[in-house]
Amino acid sequence: MIFPIFFTFFLLLSSSHASVQDFCVADYKAPDGPAGYSCKKPAKVTVDDFVYSGLGIAGNTTNIIKAAVTTAFAAQFPGVNGLGISLARLDLAPGGVIPFHTHPGASEVLLVIQGTIIAGFVASDNTPYLKTLKKGDIMVFPQGLLHFQVNGGGTPALAFPSFSSPSPGLQILDFALFKNDLATELIAQTTFLDAAQIKKLKGALGGTN
Amino acid sequence: MIFPIFFTFFLLLSSSHASVQDFCVADYKAPDGPAGYSCKKPAKVTVDDFVYSGLGIAGNTTNIIKAAVTTAFAAQFPGVNGLGISLARLDLAPGGVIPFHTHPGASEVLLVIQGTIIAGFVASDNTPYLKTLKKGDIMVFPQGLLHFQVNGGGTPALAFPSFSSPSPGLQILDFALFKNDLATELIAQTTFLDAAQIKKLKGALGGTN
Amino acid sequence: MIFPIFFTFFLLLSSSHASVQDFCVADYKAPDGPAGYSCKKPAKVTVDDFVYSGLGIAGNTTNIIKAAVTTAFAAQFPGVNGLGISLARLDLAPGGVIPFHTHPGASEVLLVIQGTIIAGFVASDNTPYLKTLKKGDIMVFPQGLLHFQVNGGGTPALAFPSFSSPSPGLQILDFALFKNDLATELIAQTTFLDAAQIKKLKGALGGTN
Amino acid sequence: MIFPIFFTFFLLLSSSHASVQDFCVADYKAPDGPAGYSCKKPAKVTVDDFVYSGLGIAGNTTNIIKAAVTTAFAAQFPGVNGLGISLARLDLAPGGVIPFHTHPGASEVLLVIQGTIIAGFVASDNTPYLKTLKKGDIMVFPQGLLHFQVNGGGTPALAFPSFSSPSPGLQILDFALFKNDLATELIAQTTFLDAAQIKKLKGALGGTN
Amino acid sequence: MIFPIFFTFFLLLSSSHASVQDFCVADYKAPDGPAGYSCKKPAKVTVDDFVYSGLGIAGNTTNIIKAAVTTAFAAQFPGVNGLGISLARLDLAPGGVIPFHTHPGASEVLLVIQGTIIAGFVASDNTPYLKTLKKGDIMVFPQGLLHFQVNGGGTPALAFPSFSSPSPGLQILDFALFKNDLATELIAQTTFLDAAQIKKLKGALGGTN
Amino acid sequence: MIFPIFFTFFLLLSSSHASVQDFCVADYKAPDGPAGYSCKKPAKVTVDDFVYSGLGIAGNTTNIIKAAVTTAFAAQFPGVNGLGISLARLDLAPGGVIPFHTHPGASEVLLVIQGTIIAGFVASDNTPYLKTLKKGDIMVFPQGLLHFQVNGGGTPALAFPSFSSPSPGLQILDFALFKNDLATELIAQTTFLDAAQIKKLKGALGGTN
Repeated sequence: MIFPIFFTFFLLLSSSHASVQDFCVADYKAPDGPAGYSCKKPAKVTVDDFVYSGLGIAGNTTNIIKAAVTTAFAAQFPGVNGLGISLARLDLAPGGVIPFHTHPGASEVLLVIQGTIIAGFVASDNTPYLKTLKKGDIMVFPQGLLHFQVNGGGTPALAFPSFSSPSPGLQILDFALFKNDLATELIAQTTFLDAAQIKKLKGALGGTN
Repeated sequence: MIFPIFFTFFLLLSSSHASVQDFCVADYKAPDGPAGYSCKKPAKVTVDDFVYSGLGIAGNTTNIIKAAVTTAFAAQFPGVNGLGISLARLDLAPGGVIPFHTHPGASEVLLVIQGTIIAGFVASDNTPYLKTLKKGDIMVFPQGLLHFQVNGGGTPALAFPSFSSPSPGLQILDFALFKNDLATELIAQTTFLDAAQIKKLKGALGGTN
Repeated sequence: MIFPIFFTFFLLLSSSHASVQDFCVADYKAPDGPAGYSCKKPAKVTVDDFVYSGLGIAGNTTNIIKAAVTTAFAAQFPGVNGLGISLARLDLAPGGVIPFHTHPGASEVLLVIQGTIIAGFVASDNTPYLKTLKKGDIMVFPQGLLHFQVNGGGTPALAFPSFSSPSPGLQILDFALFKNDLATELIAQTTFLDAAQIKKLKGALGGTN
Repeated sequence: MIFPIFFTFFLLLSSSHASVQDFCVADYKAPDGPAGYSCKKPAKVTVDDFVYSGLGIAGNTTNIIKAAVTTAFAAQFPGVNGLGISLARLDLAPGGVIPFHTHPGASEVLLVIQGTIIAGFVASDNTPYLKTLKKGDIMVFPQGLLHFQVNGGGTPALAFPSFSSPSPGLQILDFALFKNDLATELIAQTTFLDAAQIKKLKGALGGTN
Repeated sequence: MIFPIFFTFFLLLSSSHASVQDFCVADYKAPDGPAGYSCKKPAKVTVDDFVYSGLGIAGNTTNIIKAAVTTAFAAQFPGVNGLGISLARLDLAPGGVIPFHTHPGASEVLLVIQGTIIAGFVASDNTPYLKTLKKGDIMVFPQGLLHFQVNGGGTPALAFPSFSSPSPGLQILDFALFKNDLATELIAQTTFLDAAQIKKLKGALGGTN
Repeated sequence: MIFPIFFTFFLLLSSSHASVQDFCVADYKAPDGPAGYSCKKPAKVTVDDFVYSGLGIAGNTTNIIKAAVTTAFAAQFPGVNGLGISLARLDLAPGGVIPFHTHPGASEVLLVIQGTIIAGFVASDNTPYLKTLKKGDIMVFPQGLLHFQVNGGGTPALAFPSFSSPSPGLQILDFALFKNDLATELIAQTTFLDAAQIKKLKGALGGTN
């Protein structure tokens, strides 16, 4: 008989308070903190917490930007909570645009799966970095910098951005400026845009004041 | 009609469990953890969580050190929770002193607004770094090192320290040694101070034993 | 004879390769890396590496924005390298404006020393958080979010922003969009601004295309 | 004349030692450190440092595992240095297998683009988490845990893993045990495998002893 | 009268919400998060939270591996929660073995107190690093890499591993592969081991399928 | 023939710039940065970089504190560079004392191997936490807090502190105050100690002024 039971060993390792610290699947009902959501009790975790199928479905691009973003951040995909990574899906119909935006909490690597995408970011010294990306190309957008993606061809484009945080955030420039009740005058003063331009975009995006 | 509503886009982005992850305003009633306080529900957050007026009031310096420290750490200023930064206010009457102390959890940059301050820290190799700071000068005190500030002129001095953590901690050397019930003998043994000196300071600061 | 020399103790602690790891004063001539600048040799470090006087001088506000920003980031103030903190100075003449901008790498706490400042940031969900700040007030701007400061009174205003990084970065929205050679058409497509508006601002800021 | 030049503003911000701290493109010729490679001089950085095309090419799967892994880690893709993220490409011919392995330095999210993949990881408490992934599915593998991927269908499968580090590392179990000169006896003692089994795999993989 | 009471000073510093942020003793009954357990209320913390005596007792080595591991991780030792460090105890009877394993969340330094231990790890490039350690020797095992320890002499060996995390995790290769219900075929496919070998080890360790 | 060569696989993984990123053994001759020393070229790394024997030798305790500290920090033990951990050795002859000190950059866990040690730390709220530790006991000292160790019995004591950083730093209170040229008056002002007491300790420790 070569292998009797490893009992002492086993006993010692499966001891008190044994929360499995390999992962921290988000428990959306408990309080969250600066490091992310609270952890689900290990006994309630299943493989489905680690798998997400929502990115398999094309977003609806019949809208003004002819584009859709679908996110698998910690708020949607509980398995990435605390693990420093998340994904999203980008659908760009012909003429589609993801307008200038930032991710305040993460760097991004964009992977082009289909079509052609013109992507770019602007550095702090105002230098633009632009490239036309083809199928299989990846491009990195450093954390917090303004960037955009535009369909560069006549066919639909599909891409998957990865992020260096489970909660990268997404601040879309036009929405931040025009899709709220910031006074037109204040926006004019802090952007140098003309009031008429501001009012036009507020009207289009549902902003007031 | 140029700008129809961005409905798909909007829908996808405002989806499930949408805790705003840009910030984590402290909820003092929920459990705290190693990364800070739990986050207030986004719906309850207001601009006042991000603004603190307590540093506008001069501290009362009619005390033995002729000095006062007023803090805007995460425990007082909920908006900095999880954001890696906090501030405080330092009032030094003529002759005022902030005695040797450390911040176990943060580096500090001191900004002098009024008066003259002699500030210094001691490095691990026992080298002292001393400087007389004037209005507008800043000085950095690396994390965890013993440092002090002394009013260097005949007029009140005002300064604002900034910290690299929302909870920098503050351990004042004299208080740590003499303002508690540590036995005089033990303090003598671990500081090489004379018992009489220790008892004198315990008496002044309210320590026992 | 009570205190002979601590020789063993001393010897053991002052041993090999003794770079003082308490701090890492920037050596601007050696290579820098993701964590910051290389460290100056300890023997060359002086107290002046930890003190910076450049924020004591008012910036020149006789310019279009009637404002000036003076920075004490790691690139100017070698002592904060690696220490998770830095400062700057903000001068706002009457009517002065720091237009919408972000710090990709840091949260900011603004301290008002003189005058009145209307400050605000916009969260990822497009909610604006606005406040009129008076002398002594502080306001926190979470990392990476668009924010601005405007002189809110008829007198000069002075404020000091602190940052949670020695290299917070600074991306000014108008400069990023208009002070470079990004094609007007591409900007129009990714911001929804009218071409005329873009060209006007390019003209003012020195952009081309 | 509405927009004179912003000269003061501009001057102050483009001052001394102005390494652009938004990113740190890897300079492979300078020393590297615990946080990654040294940074390329800003003046030498181009958009091509931020774009990588190597993942667009299918790996050669005519090998024993009928699989290929192509990496875009910081060692191949200089733009991700210091940014907390990297990608790779996984080609699995029918019958293809990525055998049990770990990434010591990163969590992984696998995105399936084509075909069917059976993927799994084992937690510290020895619970296996297995799932058959279809096109568009993503699965997260927490940092450091043993995991594998197997082609689950009769057609080629293509997937892209993203990692929470620019240098995630890759330790393939069979290679670590059998593709080196570790003594068969020692392996037997530390894995409980039979010597014959070990020698067979050493033979196949090029190990000795 | 030299030292009146420091009342203002004291008052200002002992103000609102004063959770002692020096430490975060684990509260096992509150939710845990990615950064560790919630903190015990300061008033309930005692010195015994910072002291652990469980490593003073030899583990029972009358088992198949003739070895025992006793852990003082955050799950057993509440005082290390959030502090980036933990310890364990290793008892190796003559012939004892800690088989190949990894710590997904920490680097380890092993300190040998008694006896002789042959220890080794394998790097990502498959290079093994082996050494026979004697009393007083220490060896570091970088995070996430496969490593083992074997009693190298005829007498009991005792060692204490330290870890760079309060929750380093422990994944034992044989247990991960054979002590669960992973199908023999799948293990064969992903390890290249023979089915007979797998079934033999499953039998010894209590695995099924 | 079951196992042909894994050539594609091998080729792809051993590609360009392949610094082994599992570890970063300190290269003491290249520049260091905030994250630690530069990495030795992988080809020059040997197992001896990961093993340190200096802690096997008792420190010389024939000195005033009847104690010796021997460190295996990154400056002495190149293998721990960048890995978040280091060790030291503590020898306390009967009557031996490690006087009050802090580690600015790390938390510590002390492991007692022989003898009895009275250890304690003081929290920011001035509460002392004291305990008499016996063989096998461990005690944690949170980062940056003042703490001490005293031989608590009539026999030599031996202990090994572990640290949560490869470069924890060590600031000994008496040395910081008295073993340099800080003016007696300034020390008196910032510690409330009597000038005579200060001069006595300066004399004993080699300080001047």
